[in-house]
Amino acid sequence: MATQTFETLAYAVDDGVATITLNRPDKLNAFNTQMMKDMIAAFDVTDADDAVKAVIVTGAGRGFCAGADLSGGAQTFDYDARGGEDKEARTRDGVQRDGGGLLTLRIYESLKPVIAAVNGPAVGVGVTMQLPMDIRLASTEARFGLVFARRGLNPEAASSWFLPKVVGIQTALEWCYTGRIFSAQEALDKGLVRSLHAPEDLLPAARALAREIADNTAPVSIAITRQLLWRMAGANHPMEAHRADSRGIQTRGAMADAREGVMSFLEKRPPAFTDKVSTDLPDIWEQWSAPTFK
Amino acid sequence: MATQTFETLAYAVDDGVATITLNRPDKLNAFNTQMMKDMIAAFDVTDADDAVKAVIVTGAGRGFCAGADLSGGAQTFDYDARGGEDKEARTRDGVQRDGGGLLTLRIYESLKPVIAAVNGPAVGVGVTMQLPMDIRLASTEARFGLVFARRGLNPEAASSWFLPKVVGIQTALEWCYTGRIFSAQEALDKGLVRSLHAPEDLLPAARALAREIADNTAPVSIAITRQLLWRMAGANHPMEAHRADSRGIQTRGAMADAREGVMSFLEKRPPAFTDKVSTDLPDIWEQWSAPTFK
Amino acid sequence: MATQTFETLAYAVDDGVATITLNRPDKLNAFNTQMMKDMIAAFDVTDADDAVKAVIVTGAGRGFCAGADLSGGAQTFDYDARGGEDKEARTRDGVQRDGGGLLTLRIYESLKPVIAAVNGPAVGVGVTMQLPMDIRLASTEARFGLVFARRGLNPEAASSWFLPKVVGIQTALEWCYTGRIFSAQEALDKGLVRSLHAPEDLLPAARALAREIADNTAPVSIAITRQLLWRMAGANHPMEAHRADSRGIQTRGAMADAREGVMSFLEKRPPAFTDKVSTDLPDIWEQWSAPTFK
Repeated sequence: MATQTFETLAYAVDDGVATITLNRPDKLNAFNTQMMKDMIAAFDVTDADDAVKAVIVTGAGRGFCAGADLSGGAQTFDYDARGGEDKEARTRDGVQRDGGGLLTLRIYESLKPVIAAVNGPAVGVGVTMQLPMDIRLASTEARFGLVFARRGLNPEAASSWFLPKVVGIQTALEWCYTGRIFSAQEALDKGLVRSLHAPEDLLPAARALAREIADNTAPVSIAITRQLLWRMAGANHPMEAHRADSRGIQTRGAMADAREGVMSFLEKRPPAFTDKVSTDLPDIWEQWSAPTFK
Repeated sequence: MATQTFETLAYAVDDGVATITLNRPDKLNAFNTQMMKDMIAAFDVTDADDAVKAVIVTGAGRGFCAGADLSGGAQTFDYDARGGEDKEARTRDGVQRDGGGLLTLRIYESLKPVIAAVNGPAVGVGVTMQLPMDIRLASTEARFGLVFARRGLNPEAASSWFLPKVVGIQTALEWCYTGRIFSAQEALDKGLVRSLHAPEDLLPAARALAREIADNTAPVSIAITRQLLWRMAGANHPMEAHRADSRGIQTRGAMADAREGVMSFLEKRPPAFTDKVSTDLPDIWEQWSAPTFK
Repeated sequence: MATQTFETLAYAVDDGVATITLNRPDKLNAFNTQMMKDMIAAFDVTDADDAVKAVIVTGAGRGFCAGADLSGGAQTFDYDARGGEDKEARTRDGVQRDGGGLLTLRIYESLKPVIAAVNGPAVGVGVTMQLPMDIRLASTEARFGLVFARRGLNPEAASSWFLPKVVGIQTALEWCYTGRIFSAQEALDKGLVRSLHAPEDLLPAARALAREIADNTAPVSIAITRQLLWRMAGANHPMEAHRADSRGIQTRGAMADAREGVMSFLEKRPPAFTDKVSTDLPDIWEQWSAPTFK
């Protein structure tokens, strides 16, 4: 089991599955500057490590993430006034950016599938950080709140782009307008989470799903799949997908994984995929470049 | 209670909630040129009035809106042939535009949240005008029909953009292809409306939802939220949301509302937000401009 | 009843409804180069024939489509190595493209509504070819699998663009990550198919839906509706829909179909629409051009 040390996270890799645990349980894992930096760094680790085939994110203790740490009081979201590390960590090329968005854009680029195991209350950035994670499982003890308008703020972390893609525009608007806390059951009914579990069954269920991916599929194929689905979620025309997936099929179709994938299926045996994300991931995006902040 | 007079609408504001009532009950509130003009004007009023924190749209009598007024007979949709005010009201810079779209694009730009309380049958533009309203509640007596193809026309009011964002592409296609009238229950099952109510409970439910918004959230935050979610519903990449919401958090985080939002939460008391939409709404869209008709 | 002969398809038109039947039942209708060419040709036929008002796609025998024909073994997806007709049929202007995408982009452009009647197992391209079909009905015997990552490949046929529009991003990701085979019931629960039917009731249900369209609506209106909804599914702003549907209403409002549509409704009689897709379809897309492959 590989380990890595972070101030605000626990991190462990077990048999191909990395688990990132938000680890400020006495604060209900409230999000602060250090946690933002640690999480971005953790996704750099999972991307670089070919032993990691899926990532689970969960919280230590009874909460998932209580949202922004409000110990800054009235100045909590006034980073100019706060200055120091809180401001500096949000500044890129001299421009201040939202910390939640720095994290969610990093998760959006992840090369490994990301499963949220929402063990308890999730509020504000505690919800919006989940949205670029691919699949959300929740404990029956979970609760959710997109509380920004109740705090005099606005939805952040690029959630205005992510949330309607998960739950539709009508539900997204109602949750953001009312800012109310809602139940795990409502999150399930509206499609925010894909399944509910008794608290003790949550992590086992998340691990079973991660195993299903890790045991049966080619990691390079999964990395391409992840890029395709997230990037095309905002594309104007299916031609954009056709350009990229054509290059994917052409390149991958001649690689070892595709030969193994077909032959293992025909021979009715488990596949043994050998291509590696770190060295064998093709660039299928010749005409595409990530937009920059401006 | 503020009032305003419109030929085809009733309009009233009560304790922060404006109600716009389509008011041609003897015609099942059929949509005509005057109603188009009145509704656009009504949303100008609600946007400009800081006393309005949410808007409800409903219909007088037993219908919500029976669709286009067909008293023009075979020439109903031939505005060149009809000429006069019917044509003039649809013309901008010499170009004829769809009247339903002039209305729905105005609602799309609303700075206040809009709740449709669909009290009875809604057909054609009576449905499509609802789509840029944020949240739809319906009476069990409501019925719906996207009847355009049965009239030799096509979906209008930019509904081809709005409808799939509410109900998904498959349902949108089936409803527009068949043009059939469907029940309130089907509208609920497919996600067009968020809840059904007995006829006498409909307006109270809409008002309770409007109250939940008006009593707990900052109006400037709601206006920003509305812009973010609708504009990002069509955006290509989460970076576009990150640019805008970063400016939102940076600007709002230093304003009175954010200080009040955090402190009222920490002090466990109701917030008293003081920033006003009319004077304090920041421009978070430096790189963005609304597309023009061409 | 018009007929047309294809090597891998059965094709028949009955009272306005064309049925395309994948017809390699001994191979569970596995997809090969000839089937790709035949299906593209079949949609050219349905578009050109004014007698066709709706199209049904189904499979002969117990399967819908088992996915790519794997008789090429380890070289199945290595078209450079395979060469010959398999490579040539996928090449346009010297560039190799995905065969599934050549088909789904053709279906995307169809001028007639397309109903999939999924009679049995559908795997790989057997699923992704369904996505640009407008409405999917399934037999209780159907099963589905987006198995690409289990074969060392990636989702193709522009499915990364289509699939989230049908089932949302979360379900799309889970199905593509796990590559597992799932039931007709799961396909219904998640919105991939709009209804389930006993095997013997499937085609009658598909035909009843096709009839509802063919008997009540104007074919030119349906063709415009199809273009509007699919193109606007990826559009950035409702203004793009307003531009196109304004031209639609202005043009169609002065044509015979709109006069007939209104008058038949007012006279409470069935409409008799006379405008033809082959000759009367207006160009409402002055500012729009289909993107090219590059």
